[in-house]
Amino acid sequence: MNPNFPSLAGIKAAHRRIQPFIHRTPILSSEAINEIAGCEIVFKCENFQKVGAFKARGAANAVMKLNEEQKRKGVATHSSGNHAAALARAAGVAGIPAYIVMPSNAPEIKKKAVKGYGGEIIECEPNLMARETTLESVVARTGATFIPPYDFMDVIEGQATCALEFLEDEEGIELLMAPVGGGGLLGGTALTAYYMSPEVEVIAGEPTGADDAYQSFQAGKIIPQSGPNTIADGLLTSLGELNFELIQKYVSDILLATDPQIIEAMRLIYERMKIVIEPSCAVPLAALLANKDRFNGKKVGIILSGGNVDLGKLPF
Amino acid sequence: MNPNFPSLAGIKAAHRRIQPFIHRTPILSSEAINEIAGCEIVFKCENFQKVGAFKARGAANAVMKLNEEQKRKGVATHSSGNHAAALARAAGVAGIPAYIVMPSNAPEIKKKAVKGYGGEIIECEPNLMARETTLESVVARTGATFIPPYDFMDVIEGQATCALEFLEDEEGIELLMAPVGGGGLLGGTALTAYYMSPEVEVIAGEPTGADDAYQSFQAGKIIPQSGPNTIADGLLTSLGELNFELIQKYVSDILLATDPQIIEAMRLIYERMKIVIEPSCAVPLAALLANKDRFNGKKVGIILSGGNVDLGKLPF
Repeated sequence: MNPNFPSLAGIKAAHRRIQPFIHRTPILSSEAINEIAGCEIVFKCENFQKVGAFKARGAANAVMKLNEEQKRKGVATHSSGNHAAALARAAGVAGIPAYIVMPSNAPEIKKKAVKGYGGEIIECEPNLMARETTLESVVARTGATFIPPYDFMDVIEGQATCALEFLEDEEGIELLMAPVGGGGLLGGTALTAYYMSPEVEVIAGEPTGADDAYQSFQAGKIIPQSGPNTIADGLLTSLGELNFELIQKYVSDILLATDPQIIEAMRLIYERMKIVIEPSCAVPLAALLANKDRFNGKKVGIILSGGNVDLGKLPF
Repeated sequence: MNPNFPSLAGIKAAHRRIQPFIHRTPILSSEAINEIAGCEIVFKCENFQKVGAFKARGAANAVMKLNEEQKRKGVATHSSGNHAAALARAAGVAGIPAYIVMPSNAPEIKKKAVKGYGGEIIECEPNLMARETTLESVVARTGATFIPPYDFMDVIEGQATCALEFLEDEEGIELLMAPVGGGGLLGGTALTAYYMSPEVEVIAGEPTGADDAYQSFQAGKIIPQSGPNTIADGLLTSLGELNFELIQKYVSDILLATDPQIIEAMRLIYERMKIVIEPSCAVPLAALLANKDRFNGKKVGIILSGGNVDLGKLPF
């Protein structure tokens, strides 16, 4: 086990550090969904989080931990998703520069969010090679610190604060679920649960159309995602190394859900809970509903990871 | 003034009466919306209410106030909207029959909701005459008590409990806004504000495509709605008589919003607050944004009336 993984004291310190800049998000439930699921579900609503996703936590923690010299030079990342907006916002709050490398075909709304928080966008060709070389040249030119979206200790430590609030605010949770993409949220959640309530089982939900975490978990080694195809567009990425180490050690299972199951779970959350979530958010509930027996009569905590969705492209 | 209007003690008693059967709904806000609006807005989220709308309050109050003999015979109404589901649920909770007259072309989802709560649906031709005669024959056959959707003291008293919670839970509100259709919510809100905080101005939002309340308010007499045409499909109905009396006395203004303005306000609430509302809900915010000067720098409480929307027909 990597000795540098955050300690419980570290996660608690991270929570104090970022508290002024994030919401302590509410926990909601729905009798109708409980009836359908055959268990008691409480939802931690990170869709109400700043920048609309849990990513605000990790980015804020990573930025606030920089020393003065690093802060002066700013931060950089490559992302077209919630991490880009989260890092731009954290940097904006700290009054430091943020350089965000985005593919030229990134949605206008994502670019607008980054600019709105004061981030500087550097466009590149829409492929991994271009993204990495562009980021390298930005870092070389500016001296900015690269803050990766998930495979990074301070980001994992920040994401771990979500489960900290969840387990503090809600008693009796027996199973804790989160979606898995790169594994930042899942790794942090598993770590916090292990420290605070080792009897709580941590289970991930993953789309069948991007099941690299499931495959890696079964194989005992990272199997990169190739050709992902799912509506859960926040979960397309491959598992990070640090994240995989945490998942192997502290996650008890990864359950899959098909896109029709994800859309059905998403519709349930919109219709019954009256909240806006992005498709990736619905994956744990979809995986639970596809494996009801496993959860029967239990109390389950599900982290709803974000609410940034193109309203013009809802799947219903 | 009609001497039978609910007193403050009556509204408080109604609140105690229905409390076991309703949610004390949360109050949310959005810095981004405040910035756009140029004032501080707090939203009372009745979209999270039981049956997805404030209508749960009035229906529960009316049902719980029946005597034993009346309860035995049940309740009846004609409605294809939230009042139908709310009355069916209130009756179901009380263990009494609910007879709901619905037009044969009512949306399947509305029928399903009524049946889900144990209500009995009686279909009729989709016109006012058929609705009224069908209701009369149901009442004659069953002896059930007719609970009208808004022009009824016990319903107004129930809807008035929403503003009671709002003013108890949130300090410093200077203006209170609600949408206006039949006037049950607006009338009850105005009455509660008058009793609890007479310095609070109560202002309605109404669609230009169904502006009978505005017309009536200007004319000083009820001008029935003819040929309504708006996306705010919960506000098509004409003002009730009791409701108009309250509005004339305690509402300071009715502001209009066009459908494009309503859709824009609806999008803001979905995107920025990450909650699901029905179009009627967005009317007060739309009216506020169309009359910003009037609200500049003030603290405004807006009641979001409901969240029952056909997700397949969102206007964006």
